[in-house]
Amino acid sequence: MDPQHAAPDTASVRYLEERAARVPGDELTARLAGLRAALAARDLDAALVVQNADLYYYAGTVQQSHLYVPADGEPALFTRKTVARARLETPLEVVPLASVTALPGQLRARYGALPRRLGLELDVLPVNQLRRYETLLPDVQAVDVSPLVTRQRAVKSPWEVERIRAAGAVTIAVSERLPELLEEGMTEAELAGRLEAVARSLGHQGVIRMRGFNQEMFYGQLLTGPSGEVASFLDTPLAGTGLSPAVAQGVSFRRIARGDPIVFDFVTARDGYTADFTRMFVLGTLDAKLEEAYEVALRIQEAVVARAGPGVRCRELFETALGMAESAGLAASFMGYGEGRVRFIGHGVGLELDEPPVLSPNDLALEEGMVFALEPKFVLPGSGAIGIENTWLVTGGAPEVLTPAPEHIHYL
Amino acid sequence: MDPQHAAPDTASVRYLEERAARVPGDELTARLAGLRAALAARDLDAALVVQNADLYYYAGTVQQSHLYVPADGEPALFTRKTVARARLETPLEVVPLASVTALPGQLRARYGALPRRLGLELDVLPVNQLRRYETLLPDVQAVDVSPLVTRQRAVKSPWEVERIRAAGAVTIAVSERLPELLEEGMTEAELAGRLEAVARSLGHQGVIRMRGFNQEMFYGQLLTGPSGEVASFLDTPLAGTGLSPAVAQGVSFRRIARGDPIVFDFVTARDGYTADFTRMFVLGTLDAKLEEAYEVALRIQEAVVARAGPGVRCRELFETALGMAESAGLAASFMGYGEGRVRFIGHGVGLELDEPPVLSPNDLALEEGMVFALEPKFVLPGSGAIGIENTWLVTGGAPEVLTPAPEHIHYL
Repeated sequence: MDPQHAAPDTASVRYLEERAARVPGDELTARLAGLRAALAARDLDAALVVQNADLYYYAGTVQQSHLYVPADGEPALFTRKTVARARLETPLEVVPLASVTALPGQLRARYGALPRRLGLELDVLPVNQLRRYETLLPDVQAVDVSPLVTRQRAVKSPWEVERIRAAGAVTIAVSERLPELLEEGMTEAELAGRLEAVARSLGHQGVIRMRGFNQEMFYGQLLTGPSGEVASFLDTPLAGTGLSPAVAQGVSFRRIARGDPIVFDFVTARDGYTADFTRMFVLGTLDAKLEEAYEVALRIQEAVVARAGPGVRCRELFETALGMAESAGLAASFMGYGEGRVRFIGHGVGLELDEPPVLSPNDLALEEGMVFALEPKFVLPGSGAIGIENTWLVTGGAPEVLTPAPEHIHYL
Repeated sequence: MDPQHAAPDTASVRYLEERAARVPGDELTARLAGLRAALAARDLDAALVVQNADLYYYAGTVQQSHLYVPADGEPALFTRKTVARARLETPLEVVPLASVTALPGQLRARYGALPRRLGLELDVLPVNQLRRYETLLPDVQAVDVSPLVTRQRAVKSPWEVERIRAAGAVTIAVSERLPELLEEGMTEAELAGRLEAVARSLGHQGVIRMRGFNQEMFYGQLLTGPSGEVASFLDTPLAGTGLSPAVAQGVSFRRIARGDPIVFDFVTARDGYTADFTRMFVLGTLDAKLEEAYEVALRIQEAVVARAGPGVRCRELFETALGMAESAGLAASFMGYGEGRVRFIGHGVGLELDEPPVLSPNDLALEEGMVFALEPKFVLPGSGAIGIENTWLVTGGAPEVLTPAPEHIHYL
């Protein structure tokens, strides 16, 4: 018997079923309708969705699958591993697929013809995988659908917003435990481990997904004192040394001392959805220059949020923030220092940490339902780093904070 | 002043320098010589290396860079962010690169001509990134060098072996703490958090790199009772439910009970290098069927290791193991059950968790210096999962275990 086609064990399936919290069917229906409309508008025959975050978005599962979405017809999920699990997790039709070589035959049998203009996630799809599809579907013209997909995903449904709010609640609960878990003289790595353990017990899923090539994230950045000044390859205003050049970001073995600015920049991912959040802590008192910069960060947050309504372009928000940093005489320290400076003040969050809208000099206009993290931060050489970050929902009126927690510096 | 070109702050650079543990220069020289010889043998003009694990391997840094390695000429690291940090981390020449569009001009200025046959990591490089290179270098013929790169990386230097041994030592220290951190009735997630906190304090880098598209790993798999029976998208014999279908692997909120087989499958990554390891724990006593299967797993480990010398093909090791599982009447449970079964008994480890040699029915022959994790495991429906895993070094004689720790079932 081919083990790939053995009947799944019923006891395990029952156990799994109890734990398979499905994405509601009407969510998937609405998302797939949006994708199909976008495909039709661009004269595409279909999309073939394969990346984990996108699969989860459109099908509710990350089981090894090719999700085929015709512009005109019913989608189907061609699943290699595991079929039993995919069937528990998605209401879509699941078609067992022994190997990708069987895909053309399956598509022809089901849809009568093979696609010619086919949408693929070319921003993340490896070249060798595209070449395989091009061999299997010789007349195919591969068109990048990642702009459509990420643009659609940028606008969250109320159900998604609640997931992001729940992720934020985990982070807030962790931050509330920080004062009791922090001890003078412990390493950044040790403190991070204690906080991460709290997050895990509250449902942090571990893996944080990023779309950008080579971008990596592990719980965020817990940086103290001079660690906050160190930039890296990552597209973030702060990065830290990390434990070695192999990782080159995040916590180090530096021992935490009195007076260190402690940047608690923490990312929770739960049920697939991320929330981003930063608060400041210090044992004792803080350098007055940092305190002044923090006041500027709070004012920038207030001013940007006050403008962040539907129709407002990302560029305007970026320029508002940059102008205020310049007026405060802190332009050179805003969003990093020297070659570590980044040209954005925030980014969309959702199933990935690096989603649109990116709050940079670009012309994307905000829409109701978009969710972004806004993170005005300063790096003051010799003093450390400081800033604030919340995750916000764009509404018809004022943006709603999805990470509500006290915003003062926590003096311990 | 363009912030991208500002002088780096000297205090931060000094702070970073103290923490920049470099890959020894003679390691990089030997690795680059090996790559250049492989390029010349395949009539390639050069390789352009861009992925984090490969960049770290050949240049000792993951700063945002294009590493250009001519078959005949000196390599150079074209770095966008951060130049200061790349210069601390690599002995190679670092050339600031404001944007990838400047790459052709830089290459022409330095090497006199642009490459025609250019090696790229086409197994991981996103399609859009290749298309950008093809626009910038119009006569280029992109050739996949990932087989050369991963093949070279499979044979570790003594310096690399010591890094893997150090990663294994972290895991062993964590496993020694498990008996005191485990409490009956706590969730898998809670226990995982406690163990991960120990690993962090000992230098676990957090991020675990995998090369395969969509493959993800977070510390390994801590699975108890029925969780061990649940397969998933991941190419592993055990996977677990995970906290939601969005992640679909790893720990759940299941509460740990007496008599549960507790699979402690833990991956440490430290200084870039990974070690893989599994041991079994139980509160009280274990199902006798699991104990019998565990004895078979130990015998399979012994038999495979006894054969795992230079020149032996992966296929022979796989067939040895499968034959023993069949003789024991456990073929249907070996390396997973039903459609969750995988067709390998181990995999190479190093800068990534999914490296060659893969111990599957393939004809790659082992060489001295290769490092692999061997993980004979069984899934017994209704009883749970059990198995053992160690990380091994292929030597001229018997393989050396890099994760030495007691191998009995830990009855607590």
